[in-house]
Amino acid sequence: MKKTVIVFFVCLYCSLLSLQAIVVPSTNKTRLNDGWQYIRGDMGSVWEVMRPAQPGKPEFVPLWTPVTLPHCFNAEDAVDPDVNYYQGPGWYKTALSIDNPYTNGRILLEFEGAGQRTEVYVYTTKVGEHTGGYDGWKVDITEAVEAFRQTEVCQKQFKGKIPVAVRCDNSRDTEIIPSDMSDFNVYGGLYRYVNLVYVPEISFDRIRIEAHTDEKGKNGQLLIHTSFYNPEKKETALPLSIRIKDPQGKEVYTQTLSQPWLRDTELVRISLKKPGLWDVENPQLYTCELTLGVDGQSIQAKEQFGFRHFEFKEKGPFFLNGRRVLLKGTHRHEDHAGLAAALTEELMVQEMQLIKKMGANFIRLGHYQQSDIILRLCDQLGILVWEEIPWCRGGLGGESYKEQARRMLTNMVEQHHNHPSVILWGMGNENDWPGDFNTFDQQAIRAFMKELHDLSHQLDNSRLTAIRRCEFCKDIIDVYSPSIWAGWYSRAFRDYAEMSEKGIQGTTRFFHAEWGGDSHARRHMEGDFAHVSNAATKGDWSESYIIRLFDWHLKEQEKMPLLTGSAFWTFKDFSTPLRPENPVPYVNQKGVVERDQTPKESYYVFQSYWSKEPMVHIYGHTWPVRWGEKEEKKEILVYSNCPEVELFVNGVSQGKKKRDSQDFPAAGFHWYVPLIEGENTIRAIGSDKKNSLIIDEIKQTYQTQKWGKEAEISLTATPLENDQVWIQAELKDAAGVRCLDSRQYIEFSLAGDGKLIQNQGTSTGSYRVQSYNGRACIKLERKGKCVVAVKSDKLPSIFLSIE
Amino acid sequence: MKKTVIVFFVCLYCSLLSLQAIVVPSTNKTRLNDGWQYIRGDMGSVWEVMRPAQPGKPEFVPLWTPVTLPHCFNAEDAVDPDVNYYQGPGWYKTALSIDNPYTNGRILLEFEGAGQRTEVYVYTTKVGEHTGGYDGWKVDITEAVEAFRQTEVCQKQFKGKIPVAVRCDNSRDTEIIPSDMSDFNVYGGLYRYVNLVYVPEISFDRIRIEAHTDEKGKNGQLLIHTSFYNPEKKETALPLSIRIKDPQGKEVYTQTLSQPWLRDTELVRISLKKPGLWDVENPQLYTCELTLGVDGQSIQAKEQFGFRHFEFKEKGPFFLNGRRVLLKGTHRHEDHAGLAAALTEELMVQEMQLIKKMGANFIRLGHYQQSDIILRLCDQLGILVWEEIPWCRGGLGGESYKEQARRMLTNMVEQHHNHPSVILWGMGNENDWPGDFNTFDQQAIRAFMKELHDLSHQLDNSRLTAIRRCEFCKDIIDVYSPSIWAGWYSRAFRDYAEMSEKGIQGTTRFFHAEWGGDSHARRHMEGDFAHVSNAATKGDWSESYIIRLFDWHLKEQEKMPLLTGSAFWTFKDFSTPLRPENPVPYVNQKGVVERDQTPKESYYVFQSYWSKEPMVHIYGHTWPVRWGEKEEKKEILVYSNCPEVELFVNGVSQGKKKRDSQDFPAAGFHWYVPLIEGENTIRAIGSDKKNSLIIDEIKQTYQTQKWGKEAEISLTATPLENDQVWIQAELKDAAGVRCLDSRQYIEFSLAGDGKLIQNQGTSTGSYRVQSYNGRACIKLERKGKCVVAVKSDKLPSIFLSIE
Repeated sequence: MKKTVIVFFVCLYCSLLSLQAIVVPSTNKTRLNDGWQYIRGDMGSVWEVMRPAQPGKPEFVPLWTPVTLPHCFNAEDAVDPDVNYYQGPGWYKTALSIDNPYTNGRILLEFEGAGQRTEVYVYTTKVGEHTGGYDGWKVDITEAVEAFRQTEVCQKQFKGKIPVAVRCDNSRDTEIIPSDMSDFNVYGGLYRYVNLVYVPEISFDRIRIEAHTDEKGKNGQLLIHTSFYNPEKKETALPLSIRIKDPQGKEVYTQTLSQPWLRDTELVRISLKKPGLWDVENPQLYTCELTLGVDGQSIQAKEQFGFRHFEFKEKGPFFLNGRRVLLKGTHRHEDHAGLAAALTEELMVQEMQLIKKMGANFIRLGHYQQSDIILRLCDQLGILVWEEIPWCRGGLGGESYKEQARRMLTNMVEQHHNHPSVILWGMGNENDWPGDFNTFDQQAIRAFMKELHDLSHQLDNSRLTAIRRCEFCKDIIDVYSPSIWAGWYSRAFRDYAEMSEKGIQGTTRFFHAEWGGDSHARRHMEGDFAHVSNAATKGDWSESYIIRLFDWHLKEQEKMPLLTGSAFWTFKDFSTPLRPENPVPYVNQKGVVERDQTPKESYYVFQSYWSKEPMVHIYGHTWPVRWGEKEEKKEILVYSNCPEVELFVNGVSQGKKKRDSQDFPAAGFHWYVPLIEGENTIRAIGSDKKNSLIIDEIKQTYQTQKWGKEAEISLTATPLENDQVWIQAELKDAAGVRCLDSRQYIEFSLAGDGKLIQNQGTSTGSYRVQSYNGRACIKLERKGKCVVAVKSDKLPSIFLSIE
Repeated sequence: MKKTVIVFFVCLYCSLLSLQAIVVPSTNKTRLNDGWQYIRGDMGSVWEVMRPAQPGKPEFVPLWTPVTLPHCFNAEDAVDPDVNYYQGPGWYKTALSIDNPYTNGRILLEFEGAGQRTEVYVYTTKVGEHTGGYDGWKVDITEAVEAFRQTEVCQKQFKGKIPVAVRCDNSRDTEIIPSDMSDFNVYGGLYRYVNLVYVPEISFDRIRIEAHTDEKGKNGQLLIHTSFYNPEKKETALPLSIRIKDPQGKEVYTQTLSQPWLRDTELVRISLKKPGLWDVENPQLYTCELTLGVDGQSIQAKEQFGFRHFEFKEKGPFFLNGRRVLLKGTHRHEDHAGLAAALTEELMVQEMQLIKKMGANFIRLGHYQQSDIILRLCDQLGILVWEEIPWCRGGLGGESYKEQARRMLTNMVEQHHNHPSVILWGMGNENDWPGDFNTFDQQAIRAFMKELHDLSHQLDNSRLTAIRRCEFCKDIIDVYSPSIWAGWYSRAFRDYAEMSEKGIQGTTRFFHAEWGGDSHARRHMEGDFAHVSNAATKGDWSESYIIRLFDWHLKEQEKMPLLTGSAFWTFKDFSTPLRPENPVPYVNQKGVVERDQTPKESYYVFQSYWSKEPMVHIYGHTWPVRWGEKEEKKEILVYSNCPEVELFVNGVSQGKKKRDSQDFPAAGFHWYVPLIEGENTIRAIGSDKKNSLIIDEIKQTYQTQKWGKEAEISLTATPLENDQVWIQAELKDAAGVRCLDSRQYIEFSLAGDGKLIQNQGTSTGSYRVQSYNGRACIKLERKGKCVVAVKSDKLPSIFLSIE
């Protein structure tokens, strides 16, 4: 019997690099990432933005900062422990070299999303505006560019370039959505890509692809509609060629039409026998290429789509292409350490790969339309999607509020319609939560929910509507999730099946969105947490508790035949203005990865249940010191999807165990072993179905010494790459014993040539943070000599000089 | 001959405490200083401000900060080297206990000034708004309070108190004045007192007192007009008694009238023989008490006024009460270290006393209407006033802009009309400066200037109009100041007389506003600066240069018979957004006292020319180390108004000198004396006209060692009171010799339990500051152990531990 040994690394980013570069930058579209300047705050007029300004002169202030797009106002302050995050206007400016290759063509600025109210100017002319921070929109600047080119300043002040200014505004306003009562930041800025787009005088506007199949996948029906952007209403007949390729790249349909293109046109209506299906296991994508010839030039549009059939059975379960699929889902906010909403495409790819690698096949994009890049990734990775509009908490505003909600629903459906991954359009979240208005009218909310539900079906009858947590609206929409947080906001996790069953019984089409709980990364506790309930207020927010909560839910979900599926809240820790007092201030710590995508232990719990790629993970990689009595048998947990795992402690086998998902915890991979005082080596070896061996190993110190009250801080520095230094502070008692259960806040400060890498919203990236097992860490960037100081409550501060 | 020895201290605050508490807090008026909460940024609606909010709930964020009024948004950030100062909205909220003693009375909120656009709410009802950051205004909240008392929330949520919210907004806006091109911050916040005022159903509105006299003071004419606040138009006849007291408190007129009080009424028209005159030497004030009886209750108003006669002769000079007075003036902004515009009355008293003690008899309140407290102080101290509206730079906006200017002129004249100190109403400043608009139309500016001039005379024909620096408008107004900055922005200070003469010749009524230059406090240089010109760009910004510039001007002004007077720019260093690169970042350093009122050396130069109180001041109190060759004779300057001063160096008399204002520098009190290497004791003894002796003494080190390039930083800490520590950094060359002419920037940072007292806008209160003679200082507040780090350019940083 041949055995292959695979060592499973924590570094997950390196793998799965097969995805192609995903977004368009085609020849007629350029991402405008560089050459921007930014100012936080309002300007007195757009003239103030544009007027000539020499250094030292009054026109030169306020001072602008060079930035790269995407850019978010709140990259730092969203998780600064000391301030409210900035909500107000900000300006961006640049000067563009514009050279449209199309004769009589149009020049567009495309905003993939900007927060939250945006105005666009070419020189001092307002060319467009938009309200809504998550849907894409375009501005045609052709005439404004032409007019500006006729002015003297064009050459004189701007050397022929076209000055563009954008004012974004995320001011609080109860009359726009999302509400500021939402448990996430309402970010400001050009936090998604901005593109310069050239098109001929007639070009494609919206391409709507409908690809349907019966549940067996015998017959595919394909309909392609196109609308055109033809602002001058030209009636010339132009050739439009259509090419459709199957997932293997084989052409399955081709056609050329020639006619005037003024209105919505059905281009294709065909049947395909046994089309290649899009599935979560094998997400096969067709391609549609449309080419329009205009005056000897051409413009091409390329769309991907897929054939798939889904069904939410009443009372469950869920079927995809005729087969039951348990929806294994998570959630995603657009938020990242050091960037806030301004994620690059590269980071989005990493994040979605990490989600897929965990084994998820479903995601709820809470609580707003997300970047089209994410939807493309879901298409390619095989992740089903619930996407929603940000009508979230607070109540119901007036007419402009409702109009924004309708518009954002329309835009979401139209812009993301062609993605086969999407199955649910969300109308709202927690619409039973009052607060933004003096009154709260359930009937008005019901009426508007019905209106949105109807609008959604009118726009796209091939998907269902969904909401979470608004009992008095659950009869209106198609798929409903009540609020069930077993073991977190109510009761104990062991009550999950009962609570969930009640949900299934009380709901026509039940889905369980949002469950889980907060965990402070790197905080671990001894014990089995058998009797913990309502842990949000009464728990210790440890990883040790949360892995058990997740573990229990996952084991239960495996034996619920009617369950369509669930989505735990949430994949990644994220910033929220509502939680200034959290262990990492202003961070919702319910993620299974930290805000910088560092996996917590719970990531592997999900992987052990959901992923098919063999893995073994000993619980405790971020738990350097365990504690207990001498010779006490300590529980060791291994999360693995292998059929069998053998555990070794200090080189001695503790026996093999077989996986049994119903043998809680860790699906049977738990051992009770005495640890030796000092360092222990713990090794787990799993063998997969092909008899390859997968090994994980950690070293843990075992402490039997008891500790008293925190009495002193000790401090160490470890050099990292790139002149970074890792600082660790530990709380000790008067005898110098580590206080391993201390949760006291620790604060870092620095003087001299360097800076703390802070405001990251992570357990190791916040200058003020609750200690995890009596310790806290932070990184610093060293530029010369500096001194780090650490304080904690009333203990004497301690200092460390970094040379 | 009996001699009294008076040692003259730097501490000037302690003296002159005889001024009474000046502002009203009478029984029916309460300053609302305490119990406020503040938030920087906008709220989503006033409901968001008022709704119930429990800690930990979404309604509880954003977090409010408790503040005391007066309060300015920009107390810290105006001089933070790293940020643009905040310009945007901010909210204040409080809950008032309201108990109006008057039956059927009115409840008013009085704002003495708020920046820059303000809205006022009682609970969620908007009760008033105002645009303009410097004029006073009132809001009648009677009905809103009554209505709120009828609601359930009044008792339930607010326990019977009345919730009040105020939204201030200092957002940039080219359509409001002052322009953001102004060389001062357009501050935000409730930076002047807010008062709760109770009045009966009929009360006084505006009391207008006209007190005139001929230039000999033989006949006084007194006219008193009153308008009434009678919102319900009650026609009941009510008794109104009038009492007028002369400066000695003797009643000179009494009368009681009884009639309905609905419209403007002339209450008094009398003549007074030889009234006690208000003069800069003896500012005698009359008092007028008006008492209105309403339904058995009464309300009293008390106004002070004075009789005086002034005249600006064409081509000069200026006469007050028939005698030539040289106007010895300065300027004032509402700005102070650590507070920005939010000065307390106590600080205003200190500041105006310091100005009087310097010998000034004139002040231009540039560039806006200031607190009424300042005007009262000017009345009491005998300081003539030019007060102006903030039409300053940028051009001319549209109708709402102009309407604001008219309104602010009207309010300034009406609100400050009764102050005898006021002689000039300013229409604008530097209105020849374009920039806020795409166009700049001199004719439109002329037309609007004429309109304002006419409006001013229509409102108050007893004062003249004035502007500074707008040549194309100088024929429109009464008194004009061209721009003359001899030795600073153009030419050399020795050209002052010639430049000024040209101004007098080219102007009908000439006054010289704004002259002087920047000096970086504590920077001193050897040399006589004989050939310096255009020092703003080419000079060293030392105190040594600026004292000579001031000295020269003052000596010249003494022999200019046609000069009405001048006002140097400016008394106190102040914050400006236009000067991020200044030695103290963002500070206009043209003051003779620092932004915290610490006198620079130049303060004493003025005092030596202007003050009559005997004083002696050796130049160099903040110059610890002088330098030069061995046995070189060094110039020692003594500023004194004594007829004779004797100088002692290291105990040896260097001879007596007689004061001769035309013997530059220091009016003849200059000596050339060799100093010894190391410490020298320099003592000057002046004798005043009564033969009292006034002594000043300093110790100065003399350094003959030459220094090279800056190579290291040395650092010392000196404990002060209240757990503060004085930190001094010095730049030294490779041999450890002090680099006494270094101007390199020095930056302080701190880690641990303490904080730097920074963002003060002073030479010793900025974490980044240009060194003065190779040194820089800062204070810190110690709360435990901390470490201070200092860096300067590329030198190795240095650290000092503070236990």
